[in-house]
Amino acid sequence: MAKPAPLSGFPELLPAQRVVEQQVIATLASTFELHGFANIETRAVEPMDQLLRKGDTSKEVYVLRRLQETKDAARDKGLDNGLGLHFDLTVPFARYVLENAGKLEFPFRRYQIQKVWRGERPQEGRFREFAQADIDIVGRDLLPFHHDIEVARVMLDALGRLDFLPGFRLQVNNRKLIQGFYRGLGLDDDAVDEVMRLVDKLDKLSPEQVATSLVAEAGLSDAQAQQCLALATIRATDDSFVARVQALGVEHPLLDEGLDELALLLRGTTGLATEKVRIEADLSIARGLDYYTGTVFETRLDGYESLGSICSGGRYDALASDGRTTYPGVGISLGVSRVLVPLIQRGVVTGDRSVPSAVLVAVADEESRPQADAIAAALRARGIPCEVAPSAAKFGKQIKHADRRGIPYVWFSGTDDAGAATHEVKDIRSGNQVPADPGTWEPPLEDLRPRVSTSSTTEASSTTEASSTTEASSTTEASSTTEASSTTEASSTTTKETDQ
Amino acid sequence: MAKPAPLSGFPELLPAQRVVEQQVIATLASTFELHGFANIETRAVEPMDQLLRKGDTSKEVYVLRRLQETKDAARDKGLDNGLGLHFDLTVPFARYVLENAGKLEFPFRRYQIQKVWRGERPQEGRFREFAQADIDIVGRDLLPFHHDIEVARVMLDALGRLDFLPGFRLQVNNRKLIQGFYRGLGLDDDAVDEVMRLVDKLDKLSPEQVATSLVAEAGLSDAQAQQCLALATIRATDDSFVARVQALGVEHPLLDEGLDELALLLRGTTGLATEKVRIEADLSIARGLDYYTGTVFETRLDGYESLGSICSGGRYDALASDGRTTYPGVGISLGVSRVLVPLIQRGVVTGDRSVPSAVLVAVADEESRPQADAIAAALRARGIPCEVAPSAAKFGKQIKHADRRGIPYVWFSGTDDAGAATHEVKDIRSGNQVPADPGTWEPPLEDLRPRVSTSSTTEASSTTEASSTTEASSTTEASSTTEASSTTEASSTTTKETDQ
Repeated sequence: MAKPAPLSGFPELLPAQRVVEQQVIATLASTFELHGFANIETRAVEPMDQLLRKGDTSKEVYVLRRLQETKDAARDKGLDNGLGLHFDLTVPFARYVLENAGKLEFPFRRYQIQKVWRGERPQEGRFREFAQADIDIVGRDLLPFHHDIEVARVMLDALGRLDFLPGFRLQVNNRKLIQGFYRGLGLDDDAVDEVMRLVDKLDKLSPEQVATSLVAEAGLSDAQAQQCLALATIRATDDSFVARVQALGVEHPLLDEGLDELALLLRGTTGLATEKVRIEADLSIARGLDYYTGTVFETRLDGYESLGSICSGGRYDALASDGRTTYPGVGISLGVSRVLVPLIQRGVVTGDRSVPSAVLVAVADEESRPQADAIAAALRARGIPCEVAPSAAKFGKQIKHADRRGIPYVWFSGTDDAGAATHEVKDIRSGNQVPADPGTWEPPLEDLRPRVSTSSTTEASSTTEASSTTEASSTTEASSTTEASSTTEASSTTTKETDQ
Repeated sequence: MAKPAPLSGFPELLPAQRVVEQQVIATLASTFELHGFANIETRAVEPMDQLLRKGDTSKEVYVLRRLQETKDAARDKGLDNGLGLHFDLTVPFARYVLENAGKLEFPFRRYQIQKVWRGERPQEGRFREFAQADIDIVGRDLLPFHHDIEVARVMLDALGRLDFLPGFRLQVNNRKLIQGFYRGLGLDDDAVDEVMRLVDKLDKLSPEQVATSLVAEAGLSDAQAQQCLALATIRATDDSFVARVQALGVEHPLLDEGLDELALLLRGTTGLATEKVRIEADLSIARGLDYYTGTVFETRLDGYESLGSICSGGRYDALASDGRTTYPGVGISLGVSRVLVPLIQRGVVTGDRSVPSAVLVAVADEESRPQADAIAAALRARGIPCEVAPSAAKFGKQIKHADRRGIPYVWFSGTDDAGAATHEVKDIRSGNQVPADPGTWEPPLEDLRPRVSTSSTTEASSTTEASSTTEASSTTEASSTTEASSTTEASSTTTKETDQ
């Protein structure tokens, strides 16, 4: 077998990089649990008719076929009954709720952190396989609006615990507000959808271009088109947007409802704004997917605007219904891979070692391996991750074994003149070596587990050449250093491009 | 959308059941990390030519196609370049090692806990989507034998921490031993493989039937067939098997090597045997897959023998090679779903609540919701998972909300005559209600997180009728109770069948 090449769009991480993803997922999970969200996992596959039921094939679904299944059987069965990989976690969750409604307690609050698959053309932050972290709250028949505020708060709490994240902006809007506004302008249902779709392009097209297509494609008058654009330009970090919308002179009961809800949402979340976190009403946000019926969320990461929204969601009042009962929900989904993979590939974050071990237990000769195993067992019994040297090489080589992996301590044992066992532990960073007892010694808490280490993109790009040399020669975790510094070099250009 | 039906072979868990799986995975991960194994994840897909390179299509691979991909393009591309879902974690791991060899440190020790997919016919313990937990150690060119002992020890350590598991038997053998023995009998390479395949059927066929096919299909003499059967019947919990094999009078250098290795393995693991854990040399074990070259492992769970081996693996000296360098490895893989799903479905284990919340903060009226949110925030700041009541219903109804989910505490706030805030917390199991301070109160440690609760199958089947009624009426976590008791009823029969 020749050396295999990576598959574009299917990112994989090296062990020290995976440390970052593991710790991020653990932080998200523990935050969601602090807020009382239960964890579930759904199967990777859904029936094709479920995946396509909105007629939306833009998600580029992966269709499955069993190898042994005859081609005729696969064709006869058709797409409707076939299986595909899920492209998000919301559609499977809605199906899970309907399937298990009799066994769940409502409102049902769950989080779900899983891979999803989309056959899209790969680009930075857009993958064919990626991890998402979703929280949703679903009610039976009714779901009070305070849950819209709650999911925003919970996700802000979670994101706020990821120290290495740059600043970000949570943008909120409300479908009732924009749909009510368009209806107040006299538009019918079809025109409302078309206008929403066109206004959503304001992040790519100029206002003039959008105005032109509103008239040409959606059949609006110039005056109507200008009103739509005026609405879409409104941004505010408090409920002052209400007066500005009202000043446009459009009236509709649905508009009022949307204004009330969005004002409530802003008042319920502004207390969470910090130097790093801005929360704003942005009346241009609509979200492409058509199941949202009220609140919508998007999130932009400072300096990584080209990634698009890293965390999106909203209220969906009719996604899950079995005909008799409807289960309205609200949720928000973080693109874990979308955020992490670019940061990791640019070398902004990495783990400070490639193994969990805090200690390498040295082996003087193969005969004494059982004693080394016993020392390791004593350390593990007190929760200290460690490994035993794989061979009784010279101690210098064993220390190098630890150094290459970023293991901070090496344990040496021997016997004194009286034949009693002696133990010493060496901090290989300082060279400091002290006597130690395998039954009581503990490393400082910060050395117990691998840590996520951060270097800002600015530092990374200004010190590229120097740091890659220095770090490579200091040999701490050679493999990831090489990886990190080579991607840093490659990506410093990318960073500049994105920043502009 | 009508109520969806479950998909056979794709098990999903209810929230209280997922608590068990979460805690098992956390226990496995932390044990593997204590032993210095680094975590990685590989993508779900591999090129079809990799998945089929052993010519082994028995794994029923799922082939992928993008929905938008034209059928002609898919056919032209053919299976060789297409993608399929991985059917285990060993083949992807071997590919990951080759792809990243320059960035990894050897010996490389990793664990991997992920879903895998096989299009097999579903039956108990056999699923189309299931989770596996693998540990492997891979060297460059060489890998000392003590790592064979190590992976067995690490997995035994992990399994030993799963309190709810019944007793089990780790069965070990060595391919060199059996292949050397067959060659010592004068068989050629083809005959050796054929005999291994036929002897592997001893768990389904009688010795007489196997002897007949050894003669008829593999062309052995009666005497050779009897020798093969004599070898396969040898079992021992210590290295006494060596003398018994030697007594059969067959000689071959590879046989000696295999005997030495297996004796080392038994001597290195027998100290780990307990009342629940038996370790034995079982010379009938061969493992179907053909990449094993030395040590092989299988594991049988007491009372669940019909599940087959729940934890298997072995030494593979040639799985990963780029032509110039070979990466020999040894590993062992636990079928997480294979063990857990039957135990969960039979009601042997479940979580004691369906949400992470230890506390429900009651809401007296919607106006005071912000105060309830503040109390919840104070509790969360000290790591206490909690949720705020979704509506200001009567307190009795709010207590019931907690009770249905298994939340042990409800927090009540009010104001005293002087207008100062008052706080009380009620343990709804005992009814005990005491004053509490949101800044300092803590629940007992055992109430902080959901716990895994166990009922032995014996208890379950002897008390089926009575317990399902009693439990259902006591209302603690009604949904899971109903689920648990209904599966208990259904499965008590299954249990008896399996036990016989």
